[in-house]
Amino acid sequence: MVMNPLTRDIFGEIGATGLDEALALWLGAFGALRTGEETTPVAHSLGRVTAEAVIARASSPSFHSSAMDGYAVRFADTFGASETSPKRLRLKDEAVYVNTGEPLPDGMNAVVMVEDANVSGEFIEIIGPLTPWQNVRPVGEDIVETELIIPENSRIRPVDMAAMLAAGHTEIKVRKRPKVALIPTGSEMVEPGTPPKKGNIIESNSRMLAGLVTEWGGEPIREATVPDDIEGLKQATSDALKGADIVVVLSGASAGTKDFTRKVVLELGEVLVHGLNIKPGKPLLLGSIKAGGGHGPHRPVMGIPGYPVSAYLTFTLFARPLILGMQGLCPEEPEVLKARLSRQAASPMGQEEFLRVKVGNVGGNLIATPLGRGAGLLMSLVRADGLLKIPAMSEGRASGAEVEVMLLRSRHEIENTIVSIGSHDNTLDLLGNVLKKRHPDFSLSSAHVGSMGGLVALSRGEAHIAPTHLLDEETGTYNVPFIKKLMPGKKVALINLVYRVQGLMVRKGNPKAVRGFEDLLREDVTFINRQKGAGTRLLLDKRLRESGIDPEKIKGYGREEYTHMAVASAVLTGMADTGLGILAAANALGLDFIPVTEERYDLAVPAEFIETRMLRALLDVVRGDGEFRESVIGMGGYDIRDMGRVMYEGGSATSHFGGSAAS
Amino acid sequence: MVMNPLTRDIFGEIGATGLDEALALWLGAFGALRTGEETTPVAHSLGRVTAEAVIARASSPSFHSSAMDGYAVRFADTFGASETSPKRLRLKDEAVYVNTGEPLPDGMNAVVMVEDANVSGEFIEIIGPLTPWQNVRPVGEDIVETELIIPENSRIRPVDMAAMLAAGHTEIKVRKRPKVALIPTGSEMVEPGTPPKKGNIIESNSRMLAGLVTEWGGEPIREATVPDDIEGLKQATSDALKGADIVVVLSGASAGTKDFTRKVVLELGEVLVHGLNIKPGKPLLLGSIKAGGGHGPHRPVMGIPGYPVSAYLTFTLFARPLILGMQGLCPEEPEVLKARLSRQAASPMGQEEFLRVKVGNVGGNLIATPLGRGAGLLMSLVRADGLLKIPAMSEGRASGAEVEVMLLRSRHEIENTIVSIGSHDNTLDLLGNVLKKRHPDFSLSSAHVGSMGGLVALSRGEAHIAPTHLLDEETGTYNVPFIKKLMPGKKVALINLVYRVQGLMVRKGNPKAVRGFEDLLREDVTFINRQKGAGTRLLLDKRLRESGIDPEKIKGYGREEYTHMAVASAVLTGMADTGLGILAAANALGLDFIPVTEERYDLAVPAEFIETRMLRALLDVVRGDGEFRESVIGMGGYDIRDMGRVMYEGGSATSHFGGSAAS
Repeated sequence: MVMNPLTRDIFGEIGATGLDEALALWLGAFGALRTGEETTPVAHSLGRVTAEAVIARASSPSFHSSAMDGYAVRFADTFGASETSPKRLRLKDEAVYVNTGEPLPDGMNAVVMVEDANVSGEFIEIIGPLTPWQNVRPVGEDIVETELIIPENSRIRPVDMAAMLAAGHTEIKVRKRPKVALIPTGSEMVEPGTPPKKGNIIESNSRMLAGLVTEWGGEPIREATVPDDIEGLKQATSDALKGADIVVVLSGASAGTKDFTRKVVLELGEVLVHGLNIKPGKPLLLGSIKAGGGHGPHRPVMGIPGYPVSAYLTFTLFARPLILGMQGLCPEEPEVLKARLSRQAASPMGQEEFLRVKVGNVGGNLIATPLGRGAGLLMSLVRADGLLKIPAMSEGRASGAEVEVMLLRSRHEIENTIVSIGSHDNTLDLLGNVLKKRHPDFSLSSAHVGSMGGLVALSRGEAHIAPTHLLDEETGTYNVPFIKKLMPGKKVALINLVYRVQGLMVRKGNPKAVRGFEDLLREDVTFINRQKGAGTRLLLDKRLRESGIDPEKIKGYGREEYTHMAVASAVLTGMADTGLGILAAANALGLDFIPVTEERYDLAVPAEFIETRMLRALLDVVRGDGEFRESVIGMGGYDIRDMGRVMYEGGSATSHFGGSAAS
Repeated sequence: MVMNPLTRDIFGEIGATGLDEALALWLGAFGALRTGEETTPVAHSLGRVTAEAVIARASSPSFHSSAMDGYAVRFADTFGASETSPKRLRLKDEAVYVNTGEPLPDGMNAVVMVEDANVSGEFIEIIGPLTPWQNVRPVGEDIVETELIIPENSRIRPVDMAAMLAAGHTEIKVRKRPKVALIPTGSEMVEPGTPPKKGNIIESNSRMLAGLVTEWGGEPIREATVPDDIEGLKQATSDALKGADIVVVLSGASAGTKDFTRKVVLELGEVLVHGLNIKPGKPLLLGSIKAGGGHGPHRPVMGIPGYPVSAYLTFTLFARPLILGMQGLCPEEPEVLKARLSRQAASPMGQEEFLRVKVGNVGGNLIATPLGRGAGLLMSLVRADGLLKIPAMSEGRASGAEVEVMLLRSRHEIENTIVSIGSHDNTLDLLGNVLKKRHPDFSLSSAHVGSMGGLVALSRGEAHIAPTHLLDEETGTYNVPFIKKLMPGKKVALINLVYRVQGLMVRKGNPKAVRGFEDLLREDVTFINRQKGAGTRLLLDKRLRESGIDPEKIKGYGREEYTHMAVASAVLTGMADTGLGILAAANALGLDFIPVTEERYDLAVPAEFIETRMLRALLDVVRGDGEFRESVIGMGGYDIRDMGRVMYEGGSATSHFGGSAAS
């Protein structure tokens, strides 16, 4: 049953209209809108959309021209020519030299190829008759006057431009670009580049939406930010409506900005949808307001949620079909790719969810791995390769399930991405960057799930490489025992990346005077931990056991972060007083550091991948003597004595791996 | 063995370097070139390519903020709260209201959700303890200072812009757009809009290449056209080199322009390749010239063939990887689609050929049909859905072969295209245009192979519809007997489009005084014919038989065209004096007309397609009472009394078709 969302509004609640219902309401109201037409020079029409059929005004070629280099003749003059009785034709009168493409002189109607004509003095001799119009490109061979070049609603490509020009057009009618007014709101919003104050947020959503509008062929109009002031917003909305086909209000974070849009739309028109039953993106508002101070036609208005992922998703779902439709274009379905889910993706029943996922081709299997879900995690969208839709009536997808991913990157990029799952280290960012710089065709995608998680992913065929730094307590060796246990019989190499220093990070000057693990028991010291399965967590637990410290007594032991940088940031900002992590992370944020140990950080690489073009490129970067090494040293806290060296080759008697084996 | 093409040059011959070899030479010389970097505002960086890794300057969020609407508190104050002994916290001092996204007041480190706090007077009451930083979005939750946002060589998307702004960047370093100088040559070339003179050619290739440069992220610089003058071209090339990364000389049609490029390149530098062993595109020249009057670095120079299809193909093959590579991007492979070839495609041994093809999805089978091959047929490129590469060491592909097609249009467009194969009529252009106007998601693709060819294609599952006007001499009925014979047992409907008048087209004023078929025997009358299998050809042959006229005695009987418009054009331009065709074609080009007969022009549609969304949309247009009907009437020569009516339903006892059946 379709409920009128306005009914729900009476109860003062944000409804939760289903996506399909909301799209039907929205496109029902505005899907048939078209922008007007304007005249544009053909030479500047690339990417525009025709507002009328383009019909040839002239034929092309516009004259009978020679299709060969040769002599234009009258075919009747060649009757009876043969090898035994050649025909002689007088130059200038009866035979005229023409290059390919040149017009036939009046009266001439065939061309003898230059190699078939014997020139002797003022004559040519030919030894065979010609047929009428032989070797002639006739008028209209390509385009006949009145022929359809491209229909209305065609997006103009370079070849279309050439064909329109050749057919005699210099200007054509195209649809105006849909104008989309973007109104940021919120007193807390500041322009990029403003010196930051606590509580201020850099207004970046409008730039993202402006970019999307441009990509869809529209013209973004970024209005000034409106502070939390209902009258101001009403005025800004009315003003924007004068010059725009669609008005978009971007919600700020504060309560005022959340409610004002609804009130303004209700005053200027009507709310079609408020509250969408998707995650993220629930606070979307869709409305209809009248232009011309209430006397003009209805115009679409959108209230976009403030979290960037919600903003991106709802704007794509609802603004894209309108902006394309206004130009007479049909939104194409996103490219979909079938992939296997590397871990379970639970999802609440009753709400449609869009998960961001990374996708990689690991040994021919396409593997999708869910990224962070928070609506505020813009970087999860930057990193995502695609979106996975989980229907409202589902509790999610099981690990190993085949899922359909809507691609945000090209299939080509995905196929050329090295999937790294495992431990986090700052050198991985650097490695990915130098790889992309030296080999623009390859990318490195790093998921940080800890060393153990990475080796498990490798054993399940979900990653090409797994960075790992696992110390075996019994043998005192790194990584090898874990590979033997987790992947018996599988040929896996360990290639050293760096040795790195782990230690306790503390704020500059060490205000809490932390000296070692014993201090974690102090009442005035709050710790920040890494997740279970992280090599750093295993190191911590080992050291605590050795020192006889009960983890339960450490304040903050239960709070987990997934990267060294997140731990460093927590220390820097006072959420915690100390955490275990690498020196490079402490250096990056200017923290002080109490060293604990040096550890070996290797890349585990299955033999089946090591000779692929991607991995060879990666190892080239690691083993090269230039940029990557120097940048690693520049970060501090690393020793590169074994960088690129094969530390172990598992399950194999003879070496299949490049690099020098450790003795 | 790789021969040095310069060796071949000594013999004064155009070589024929293989495509792979030529690409290897070209990319070997220039593949590593990169443009310099420039600074651009992030807000204007859409589509640009990063010239350095973008590293977060600031964390986002930049302050600890509330993740909920609620009360910021000190978590220590909530110890011991329970339902039986709630804790009371004084507003302002111990509990401060915060909206989602607002900063936590100094000293506060947790948030009670608004629905979990009972407000009573100056206090809130809570009934459970909080953990540290509960319901708080910590600093850096999204982006941690020093984190990699995007690596070098990334093409910037809207989400990347937002992330860079949020991470504190206002300007970034991007690669300069590669500048590509385009120099048209040829004294015969005129600018679009110039009143045409015989022998003039509208210069449109440079606009097409400029569009391609723009699409690939480069900046086209269109230079003035250089007439046939070697010194002028040398000067123009040297001048262009000062401001461009690549210089492209566009060949005109005349002999001078063909040779000058080679001479100029040899004077300014060296020729790497002259003559490419592909079809079309053979006359390509690739060279290397020194900038700075011979003292600067080597720069790539191209001499592009004059025929538009050759120009498009060679420019795409050789300029695209350079223009993308200079930005640090990797050219992606074109999307490839497997399709079945509807007819044989013969190809000369020893030369790699690129065929333009139409592709359609007919009942789940992807069918590729080759289009015209001439290098001068720009419209074949406008109409093409893809390119089919036939290797040098192949004589072609057999009908029915599975082939790989490199797509020029999206898969979505191809899936939503109605494939029409059969007779040509001017109303089909109109039908395609109104379809696209009313239903932007659908297109009509028409191949003109004649009525018989269309029915054969239909019987082989290669088309959705076949326009046909075949008169059965025995029964005097149209189309039905042919369908019964060619597709026994198959359910096919005939839906009338128009009745149309066929007749003899003659130039305005009928200068040869043609009255009827008898005049075709006159010595001073040249005829132009249609191809075998065309309904119009069958009509002609029938009338000639009835009149006892021997076709062999008709001058021009052997010269065949594929469309009514081509016949009309031949008459208009004096290649022929008369031809048989439809009144609408005569009207379009202002010809006089001697009517011969009215005939029925139907669309044959198999039952399996008639209820598809595409066909329903098409029949909506045919049966609608508006635009299409009026435009058909406006062309003249048509009767629409049965337009859209089902004239026949073959092989079926009950009606499966819409529309009213003819009585």
